[in-house]
Amino acid sequence: MDLECASQETVKQGLLARGWPPIKGFSKHVKTKVLEFFSLLIKLGQDDPRRVVHSLKAGLALTLVSLFYYYQPLYKSFGVSAMWAVITVVVVFEFSVGATLGKGVNRGLATLLAGGLAVGAHQLANLSGRIGEPIVLGIFVFLQAAVSTFVRFCPQIKARYDYGLLIFILTFSLISISGFRDDEVLELVHKRLLTVLIGGSTCVIISVLVFPVWAGQDLHNLIASNMEKLGIFLEGFGDEYFKMPEDGESKEDRPFLQGYKSVLDSKTNEDALANFARWEPRHGRFQFRHPWKQYLKIGALTRKCAYRIESLNGHLYADIQAKREIRRKIQETCTTMSMESGKALKELSMAIKTMVKPFAADIHIENSKSSVKNLDTLLKSGLWDDETDLLEVVPVATVASLLIDVVTCTAEIAESVNELATMLKFEVVEPTVSPEKPETGQPKIGIS
Amino acid sequence: MDLECASQETVKQGLLARGWPPIKGFSKHVKTKVLEFFSLLIKLGQDDPRRVVHSLKAGLALTLVSLFYYYQPLYKSFGVSAMWAVITVVVVFEFSVGATLGKGVNRGLATLLAGGLAVGAHQLANLSGRIGEPIVLGIFVFLQAAVSTFVRFCPQIKARYDYGLLIFILTFSLISISGFRDDEVLELVHKRLLTVLIGGSTCVIISVLVFPVWAGQDLHNLIASNMEKLGIFLEGFGDEYFKMPEDGESKEDRPFLQGYKSVLDSKTNEDALANFARWEPRHGRFQFRHPWKQYLKIGALTRKCAYRIESLNGHLYADIQAKREIRRKIQETCTTMSMESGKALKELSMAIKTMVKPFAADIHIENSKSSVKNLDTLLKSGLWDDETDLLEVVPVATVASLLIDVVTCTAEIAESVNELATMLKFEVVEPTVSPEKPETGQPKIGIS
Repeated sequence: MDLECASQETVKQGLLARGWPPIKGFSKHVKTKVLEFFSLLIKLGQDDPRRVVHSLKAGLALTLVSLFYYYQPLYKSFGVSAMWAVITVVVVFEFSVGATLGKGVNRGLATLLAGGLAVGAHQLANLSGRIGEPIVLGIFVFLQAAVSTFVRFCPQIKARYDYGLLIFILTFSLISISGFRDDEVLELVHKRLLTVLIGGSTCVIISVLVFPVWAGQDLHNLIASNMEKLGIFLEGFGDEYFKMPEDGESKEDRPFLQGYKSVLDSKTNEDALANFARWEPRHGRFQFRHPWKQYLKIGALTRKCAYRIESLNGHLYADIQAKREIRRKIQETCTTMSMESGKALKELSMAIKTMVKPFAADIHIENSKSSVKNLDTLLKSGLWDDETDLLEVVPVATVASLLIDVVTCTAEIAESVNELATMLKFEVVEPTVSPEKPETGQPKIGIS
Repeated sequence: MDLECASQETVKQGLLARGWPPIKGFSKHVKTKVLEFFSLLIKLGQDDPRRVVHSLKAGLALTLVSLFYYYQPLYKSFGVSAMWAVITVVVVFEFSVGATLGKGVNRGLATLLAGGLAVGAHQLANLSGRIGEPIVLGIFVFLQAAVSTFVRFCPQIKARYDYGLLIFILTFSLISISGFRDDEVLELVHKRLLTVLIGGSTCVIISVLVFPVWAGQDLHNLIASNMEKLGIFLEGFGDEYFKMPEDGESKEDRPFLQGYKSVLDSKTNEDALANFARWEPRHGRFQFRHPWKQYLKIGALTRKCAYRIESLNGHLYADIQAKREIRRKIQETCTTMSMESGKALKELSMAIKTMVKPFAADIHIENSKSSVKNLDTLLKSGLWDDETDLLEVVPVATVASLLIDVVTCTAEIAESVNELATMLKFEVVEPTVSPEKPETGQPKIGIS
């Protein structure tokens, strides 16, 4: 007893030495952590209420398949195999319809194929007698596991059939090995396949019928909102860059100028959503063979534009800023370039969101292009006097040049959005409000 | 019969109409596809032979646990529960030690916890009589599935314990539901826990002992090789940019200038490897609590530099290039800036790889910084004559400005690599070859 007390004291001392909160404040510390965790959970639910719905759906699906155990006639026909329906629901039920369907189809087909092959392997192994059987089975299991594991490294297969291969290895091993102890292999395969199908279809049906979450719709929205984020940055950039430090507070506290950062790392998310979306049937305005590749193309171009914006953002907060006089000379053209590209991106984003042919975007792009031309003319005309320090021109010239790159990127994005609009036959709606006239140069409506 | 023939013909016609290769060329088409697939597999193995070894290890682990079925004394004590050992091996065995350990620990702990709670739930449900029992059990299953599914959305938990939560839902549901049919719940929990532990430890032991793949080592190498890729680009950039189009072939065919592109999208990979690495025990020069966060910090800075390089790369292939005279004036300083930053990055990469304190990197960075100063002086001194078209100066000024950004980024990277070197007590090795002298300005050895 004494020994136990002593060791408890040692543990306590050790904890204290490691800066653990003293026992007195410990419960308070735990309370704070728990409160923090709960407020995080509430925030997760508020950010996307579909998460709450999904959790309830998962609970519902699981409760439904557990009827196999509770309801006597069902239990009679499946017995413990009903367990596979429960397992299938837990592992197959995913957030989006596409992901659930993809996993369900993978699991179903892999179980069928592996079950068939395992029966064959069992028959072959049976021929080798009671001593040879485990050896032959062992070789089969080793070979199929090694080959299937290696095939999983193949990127094209990993993207769509990784889960199927995992289930293939699992089912083949389980059935061929069980066959050694249980001669009713065919019945085993039959029961397993049936329960997997029941579990899988429960998931798919609930996923599709109860407040469905479509990965395709999510990809569609993600692409549009990424474009919008860049647009917001560009609309604000001109004013922010040319505003003099003495005009007011620090530039750093502008959250709307930081929204674009999430676009830089969105590739993985886009790829995953496109992979899920490919499994989804026709829904709403999305067909089965919707041009998801075109979305990825637009996403890649948006990211390319975001890289330029990241460079621009660096100049927003650079310590050495050019003198007011130097910047003022190109302020108007640069602000127009940035503003018009931003408007074009927001227009394009809205066009994707509403699936209406972009109308004013081309005009904004033409305006930004004509600003580029104005800038060229300005520069050719000897903008700054001879005494101007070239050193001070460099940062301004860089911002101008990056903005020219952004205008080019925006035009590329517009082109690929127009391709998408043609593919999907976006609606043509005459705008009720006429788009703004460009601030410099002649308005060039309807060009390109 | 006629109907069947007719429908076959319809299918064939349909296939032909869809551009399917005609039946005559079909087998050839399949042959080509199969050959392509096999050459892809061979390439995958050649690119990283550890993949082949991993596949053999997976086969070995699976064959080992299948002994539970073949060996009578083992089968006697576990029976069909041995299946759980097979399932555990298939789903837990991952490429790296960290991923395998993470999944194994998650699975083990989740099974223990869920098993305990499920026994409690079973006891409570037992109190409600034969009719009340399924209702109480159903409520428990629904609640735990919904709550656990929701908690999986929490990003911090998803990163480390997602698999554990999945297994928690699975085990709790299986055991509490099975309890309805089988009163030996405790034995069920005991067998399941033991088989999961056996399967999990088989995976971990094989993963650690047979040609282990350490996620930590992979992260370490990835960070170093990303830095090297940027270095290669920067070393080649100066010559490539200032080379005149008439000098030779197209600039597009320079694969060494495209290597940096993979750095842009490496965040997901780095995050995943760091998550796995956190599970790994001490190995080689890596401790259990290795500063993986510092690697992620270096990775983020490297990516920031890569975004600037992406902008630079755009200027390499721009149609409008400044005239030779304009570019020649800053050619030397720009080439030095680019070359010295590139050398610094390659030095830092080598320092990480060999875990030796970077020696020459500081000198290269000082050289690149002094080139920035030289450029400032050049620009101040009225570099171009008054008749120079400002329009032609802009692209050159942009390249110079982006290179200045790159120099700043490189200095930041060097600083965080030095922090890492201090944390990990990198070896100090006196170089046998003295680093090159800067081409412009005075050598500034040993500064900063």
